[in-house]
Parts: sequence; structure tokens; C-alpha cells
Amino acid sequence: MEQQLNENHQKVPSLVAENHQQKKKGIVENDRIISISVVDQKMISKGPFNNFTTPNKDCIETILHEYEKTLSHRSRYHLGYPVNLSKGNYANLDPLMSFHINNCGDPFTDPHWGFNSRQFELGVLDWFAQIWEINKDDYWAYITNGGTEGNFHGLWIGFVTSSRELLGDGILYASQDTHYSVFKIAKLYRMEYVVVESSINGEMDYEDFRRKLLLNKDKPAIVVANIGTTFKGAIDDLDLIIEILHECGFSNKRFYIHCDAALLGLMLPFNKHAPKISFKKPIGSISVSGHKFLGCPMPCGIQMTRKSYIDLISQDVEVIYSKDATISGSRNGHAAIYLWHNLSIKGKIGLEKDSQKCLENASYFEGLIKGEGIVCFRNEWSLVVVFERPKDDEIIHQWQLSCEGDLAHIVVLPNVTQEKLTEFFHQLISGRTSRTNMTQSS
Amino acid sequence: MEQQLNENHQKVPSLVAENHQQKKKGIVENDRIISISVVDQKMISKGPFNNFTTPNKDCIETILHEYEKTLSHRSRYHLGYPVNLSKGNYANLDPLMSFHINNCGDPFTDPHWGFNSRQFELGVLDWFAQIWEINKDDYWAYITNGGTEGNFHGLWIGFVTSSRELLGDGILYASQDTHYSVFKIAKLYRMEYVVVESSINGEMDYEDFRRKLLLNKDKPAIVVANIGTTFKGAIDDLDLIIEILHECGFSNKRFYIHCDAALLGLMLPFNKHAPKISFKKPIGSISVSGHKFLGCPMPCGIQMTRKSYIDLISQDVEVIYSKDATISGSRNGHAAIYLWHNLSIKGKIGLEKDSQKCLENASYFEGLIKGEGIVCFRNEWSLVVVFERPKDDEIIHQWQLSCEGDLAHIVVLPNVTQEKLTEFFHQLISGRTSRTNMTQSS
Repeated sequence: MEQQLNENHQKVPSLVAENHQQKKKGIVENDRIISISVVDQKMISKGPFNNFTTPNKDCIETILHEYEKTLSHRSRYHLGYPVNLSKGNYANLDPLMSFHINNCGDPFTDPHWGFNSRQFELGVLDWFAQIWEINKDDYWAYITNGGTEGNFHGLWIGFVTSSRELLGDGILYASQDTHYSVFKIAKLYRMEYVVVESSINGEMDYEDFRRKLLLNKDKPAIVVANIGTTFKGAIDDLDLIIEILHECGFSNKRFYIHCDAALLGLMLPFNKHAPKISFKKPIGSISVSGHKFLGCPMPCGIQMTRKSYIDLISQDVEVIYSKDATISGSRNGHAAIYLWHNLSIKGKIGLEKDSQKCLENASYFEGLIKGEGIVCFRNEWSLVVVFERPKDDEIIHQWQLSCEGDLAHIVVLPNVTQEKLTEFFHQLISGRTSRTNMTQSS
Repeated sequence: MEQQLNENHQKVPSLVAENHQQKKKGIVENDRIISISVVDQKMISKGPFNNFTTPNKDCIETILHEYEKTLSHRSRYHLGYPVNLSKGNYANLDPLMSFHINNCGDPFTDPHWGFNSRQFELGVLDWFAQIWEINKDDYWAYITNGGTEGNFHGLWIGFVTSSRELLGDGILYASQDTHYSVFKIAKLYRMEYVVVESSINGEMDYEDFRRKLLLNKDKPAIVVANIGTTFKGAIDDLDLIIEILHECGFSNKRFYIHCDAALLGLMLPFNKHAPKISFKKPIGSISVSGHKFLGCPMPCGIQMTRKSYIDLISQDVEVIYSKDATISGSRNGHAAIYLWHNLSIKGKIGLEKDSQKCLENASYFEGLIKGEGIVCFRNEWSLVVVFERPKDDEIIHQWQLSCEGDLAHIVVLPNVTQEKLTEFFHQLISGRTSRTNMTQSS
């Protein structure tokens, strides 16, 4: 059977033509696509070690060209990680890559140096303040290097603000389905943390949360609410978390909630009926990624908190490290421009459309796979479809699926079309059928 | 007197023609260059708020075009921050900006996803291992988002490894001229830290270091050695630090030295007679920036440590957060390619030349300014020239000088030519002369 190769189900002649020649190197496509890179590591490694007086520009060009082909191919056959791999049209932005752009420090302080993109950063931050319902004068935020940095910052503020209210440090509560970075950070910060059980769908087990809160009523609570867990795409119920905190005797001043909304923070606001992530609720911060739903080329994100908290930190800051209240200090100035560009091109209407389409496509795939009797589930409002891990490692590798134990998942982002899902589905099914046949005949 | 406008001392007609029109907006050039941005913040902020079904592409293009002009201008008149603002020729790399590239996690583990540039990262890391004299099999490293992340990582490893050897936590020692991020991190990690006095040139006061070490002989020492302090460009004497540690009874196993070589880590290895930063010495880690001496467009850096230390951390990692031993998790894949590209284009010979040229130029400017009787100093092997802070704020703003108290500095990086230095010098002197005249006539 001839393999359909690209998203539009047309053969890619150049790749087919190169099949034979590349078989040893990778990107083979006949009845299976093999994903080993075509770029030779030895050739790449030689680059910087070139000690001639004139660099071998042809060699550099060849490597980059080969790498682009690999990247293009691997981006096309990808379903497992929460990154929108839509190929960006950034010709307008290319000239800016010739410049170093750095938004070091606080975005709200006018810096001395001119090579910053602070104006774009402020434009982006104001926009997020609007979708997360906080007044321009009441928020503080910055563009991070991604979700992990957002978590670094959220736990920092959470720890400082919650500890201020009472004598004694706060305790961190996060479900076992929380992103691994949260526990890494808790260890680095030497915070006491309590792992809350998760339900089977990946959501926090609220009764376990209540039990564990009651064991530590004397200490402030810092809570991570997952707005889309990494593996199962589960959304912790923010309203219920707040209700439980109140019921357990925690006033708003004695808890801090950091919303890790890496994937869904840019999607939920565009569905009227979806759970609401908003600073009108007593939360402390929201972190979202800019490369996940929005598809920026570099890892980046927004971390937003209340200005009053930052003022609190700034007192500390002034004596020892000036006006920097960020984690990373020097910050990627291009990221602010790419974020601004993508938001400006899409606008709310574009994001609404993307969000709607993704949910439809995720539901479409869920239907296909359930129709075959394969165990599968998807949380409401989530783009993550979880199903039985394929027995065939090759399909996992080929489609770059993410797996955990007996489960695999795909993330249906704006670049994932129904055609791609159908192609993957057929391959998944044909693998299962051939294995069943083998088992029956053996 | 007619103002000379660009690096080649030729008028820039387009800028002059636009003078009148831009006077209100910024980038004015007649007898002074004023640095307010020409891009209208309101216009930028409107971008993402555009709720039309089709984005206003013309408006986006206009903004980006105006911004590029500002950036180009501001990069041309810049002397104060440690960033090589040479305009990069990255046409080869532009197509890659259409793709999301992510080197999440450990560079030495082959990831599941294809949209990574791990091969380039390994090429870069191997090169640094060679210049810092550590065997390929003995190092562990990764490409960071910049010097601050390197410090986050260095202190993490330092803390874990030093605490392992003895019961009780290590104490951090860093001079008062150390980058502010180090003290921020120490507070975040809740490490005990001791600020060591600095000498007048910015170097660590070694006698004060000895005194403070002897007060805490029972606890392991984590020491930050500055290979170029932020403001005065001073290089802490690594050999002397090690000697003092030994003399105070600290065996190699009871201390950990993190070298913050943000600016000079890429320059010193190319001067035969310069102080040697090398893993042949009992140091724990080296961190260098990729956007400072090397001029990558985005903040980035290399953090390198000994593999044996990472293996130690990895035991912890496996249970809780898999194989990630980095700070940031998701990591900028383009940074690896830009680093690789710049190293491949320059090679060691290019870096040697750059380094030589920068030292010559720094010395040239030092000569000019001392010739005028202005207080000025420069540390050996350093690109930072420190001098009396100009009384005139306009010149500080125009040339984007960095100031601390009564001092200002410039950093003579590869993009800073003798012509530019001369232009700045004349302006500095003419400002002083006119003020002197004003004082005399009043």
C-alpha cells in the first residue's frame, strides 16, 4: 500500500526521490517513516572546531538546509507534545533577528538601553490583563522563557506573600499530576510541600486536598491549580479549590493560588462556557506559555500577578538587587515581538476560531478511536486525547507520541487537522489489526 | 558644528531628512541625538486588541519597520552594556524562525520529539568543553537563557554537592561586586550567604575572604568567582581563591567554585597570557553568556559542570521529575543554532582577533581619556573602561552608558570601533569644556 505522506494526502516527490539515498541517514518514507535525523552529527560538531581563517560557509549552508528539511518533516508528523507547530509566516520579523534585543529586568521601568522591545511587551501584557480580567493599574507581569519560569515566579511570590501574613512559612499543595517543574522548584526553594492525590481523570482529588489542608490549618497554603495538566489535560476546579480553602478556615489572606495554565490559559477565555480563569477570583498568579496554543517559535510565556505583591517584593529588591523582580534578568526581546505579532494577526476572533476548531478536532479523533473500541478519554474543554499506549514503538516514535505507563496521548493543537488525525488513526488501527492477525495465526 | 552621524562618519541622509518630522517622536539628530523611541506605544498596544476578522497587516508592517529603524539607531549609539551589538548576517537562519524549536530537558538524552536542535547544542557544548579543558566524557552542560540561569544552576549544584560531603549546608561566599542575580538566587534557595568585601578595582578582597572563611570552617564553602564583574570588569584571582581555601583547611571536596564568566568566559581563552579558566583546576562550574562577547540575538549562555555532579542530582531527579537537570525545562532551540552558527563563522581565529582588537580599542580609549586628565581605570584583560560619570545626563542617555554612583563605564565589544570611541570622546570632552566655560563665565 502506498503511504500518504503529507498533510494534504499528496505524495512529497522530493522526499520520495531521496528515499533510497537517505535510507541510511534517516527520514525514510515508504511503508513507515523513520525519524532519525538526516543531519550528520559529526559534520555539525566540526563547525565550531573549524580553525581555518575563513569559515566553510558552504558546509554551514548545507547543514542548515538539511536540518530545515528534517525539522519540516518532523514538525509535520507530530502529535504528542503541547506545541502548536503551525509553520509561522514571519518574513516581516526576519530583519529583527539581526539585532540583539533584550528586555532585562522590570518591563514597567524604562531602561537605559535602547535595544529592548519593552513597548511590544507592554502591549502583550495589557492584552492578557484584559482577558484575565484585571485592571491595568492592578497587575504586574512579564514575558518569561516559558511555563517553568512562570512557576518559578509564582511560587516565589506565593511563598513571600503567604509567609508575610503569619509567622511561619506556607506549605505548597499540588496534585500528583502537576508539572514536574513545580516539585523541582519546591525543592530548590526548600519549601515544605504536600502532594495531593489525583482522580483518575488527572484532576485534583478535592477530598484529599481538604484532608491535607486540615492537617496543616496553622500554616498558610500555596496552591498550584492546574489549568490543563501535562499528561491528561485535566482542569482543576478553581472555584471548588477556593471553596474548600474557605471551608477549612483559610481566609483569602492566608492562601495564594498560582494557576499553571501553560496550555489552556490562552484557550479557555475564548469559550464562553468554559471554566473561568480570572483575577476577579482570589488567585495570586497565572502563567501561560506562548509557544503552546499560540505557536511562537521560541519557548516563552506570560507570568501575571497582582501589583501589590510585587510592591512587597520590591522593598526587598531595592537594597540588594535594584528593580529586578523577574527570575531570569536578561530576557528575550524577540519573544515579546513574536507574541505581539501572533496576537495581532489572530486577534480574539482568530483565537476563538482556533479554540473551537481544536475542540471539534479532538472530539472527532475521540469518536474515531472509541468507535474501534479502544480505551480513550478526554477531559471537558481539553485538547488532550488519552488512549491505550500502542504496542508498536515505531508508531510512537513516528508520531512523536507522549506516553506514561500504559497510556499515550496526543494534543490537538491548531496545526493538527482532521486529515492528519485520520492518517494517524488508520495507521494506529492497521498496526492493531496486523498484530491481532499475527496473534490469531500463531 | 555639524554632527557626524554614523560609524563611518558620514551623514545619514534619511535620518537628517526625517529630522523635523521626527522631532516630536524621537531619534532627532542635529546637535544632539535624542533617544526616545519613534514607535508610538498606543499604536503598538492596539495591535493585539484588534478585533476585526482580518488583521491590519499594513499597520503591523509599519510598526515593525519603524521599530527596526529605532533599533538600528539605538544599537549604533550604544557603549554602556556588555552586549556585542554587531549586526548579524543571519539570512541562512531566517527560514528556521518559522519553526518552533525546543531543546526541553537534558541535551544528552535523545528526546522523543523531532523539533529540537540538540545536535547543534552538542556541537556547541563540545567546543566549550575543549576551550575550558575538560574531557568530553567528564562534563555535563546545557545552553541556558543567559548568565542568570547559569548562576541558578551553578548554585544549585554547588549547594547539593557541597552539602553532601558534610552534614550541614554549605555557605555561599561572593564579593559585593558580584552580579545581583547571585544574591537573589541565594535568597530564593534560602542559602546562608556571606558578602565578601571588594577592593577598589572591583576584585574580591582576598584577606576579607580568608577572615570570613575562617569564621565558618565547619561548613562547606560555595564560592562565586567573578570572571569579569558587571560594573568594573574585575577578574577574581581563581588560583588565589583556591590557595586561600586550601590554606584555611578546605579540601577540594569541601568547596565548590562557580565561575561567573558571563562576559569574559569567551575571551580569556583566546589570550595566551590571560588568567586561565579551566576545569583542570578544582572548580565546579563555569557559566558564560552567548549574547555578550559573541553577540547572539537572544540572551543565551552555556552552563558547564562536571558530569559526576549531575549524576548525583539525577538520582533525585528520577523519582520526582524524570531526567531534567536544567533550570528552565523547555529551552530555546534557536539559541543553540545561533551559537553554533556564530562559533562556526568565527572559529577560534576569529575570536582571537576579536579579543585582541577589543583590548586594543579599550586601551586606545583609556589613553584618550587619561590624556584629558579624566579619572579613569581599566582592569587587566578587561574590556570595561570605568571613568568619572559625565555631569551631562544627555550624553549618558544618548550613548546608553551604565552608571554606578560617581562612575560610568563603557564596554568595548567587537562592534565598538575606534571611530565610535573617538566620536564619543569628542562629545564627552566638548560637554566638559562647555561646562567649564560656563562655570568660569558665571
